[in-house]
Amino acid sequence: MIKIAYFGSLKTRFVKSGVERYCKWLKPYVNLSLLELKSGGDINREPVESIQKKEAAALLKKVKSEELIILDEGGEALTSKGFSTIIKNRQVTSRELFFAIGGYTGFHEDVKRSASKILSLSRMTFTHEMALLLLTEQIYRSMKIIKGEKYHY
Amino acid sequence: MIKIAYFGSLKTRFVKSGVERYCKWLKPYVNLSLLELKSGGDINREPVESIQKKEAAALLKKVKSEELIILDEGGEALTSKGFSTIIKNRQVTSRELFFAIGGYTGFHEDVKRSASKILSLSRMTFTHEMALLLLTEQIYRSMKIIKGEKYHY
Repeated sequence: MIKIAYFGSLKTRFVKSGVERYCKWLKPYVNLSLLELKSGGDINREPVESIQKKEAAALLKKVKSEELIILDEGGEALTSKGFSTIIKNRQVTSRELFFAIGGYTGFHEDVKRSASKILSLSRMTFTHEMALLLLTEQIYRSMKIIKGEKYHY
Repeated sequence: MIKIAYFGSLKTRFVKSGVERYCKWLKPYVNLSLLELKSGGDINREPVESIQKKEAAALLKKVKSEELIILDEGGEALTSKGFSTIIKNRQVTSRELFFAIGGYTGFHEDVKRSASKILSLSRMTFTHEMALLLLTEQIYRSMKIIKGEKYHY
């Protein structure tokens, strides 16, 4: 099982369809479990630090024995091949992976300290929804790379 | 008008919906024109060079006075802010932009030489469809950045 947590709801139809598609395609390889967490607050009304703290508490409560990997613009940029190594190692260490996509204000230092890796999908900024779509696609691509199978289309 | 050319068809439903959504949202700012070009051949049957040459010819025939910007994994990785500068400069130079997304085999040297810029959306590999989705989203995000408007959600 691979878990992915994100803050805020998944409200865009095409993103939902895309994520569902990759979850379905991933079934023969691994179960993806999506975890929707409540946004820590409104950035126009609350200080960033307070929002980040609430989100950190909500997230870290959910992480048990899994390896926490967070997605952050300032993180390490991997190629698809490099990313697939992380997915592959999971089978070696038999430690489950827990990915987390940051909210609008990004992650609190507590989360960064708890994470085993900080990855960046792109230097560009995306919504949490697009990040989720990209991440599920890259996990699917990883499986194809690991199995040496063709990625059709 | 901003043109985006890509090789191969747009067959994935959720990608189509997403691209249509951003095209619609972009209407008040700029017209996006999508140009679907035929793939240069089957990589299992033809040498890469020959496929790339055919795609280069097809693409370069379409570029008139526009500034050609190609997306390639080896290109420059910009932030969303940096990317928006390119979109903004278009209004200054009044030269239209012509983006091109490579096919499975990537771009021929002729195309790279003709391009004013080579950009990379991510170090990760995506299908041409996902690249198109990301690109339209970033053009929309650029418009919001340029106008100083909020990107809701």
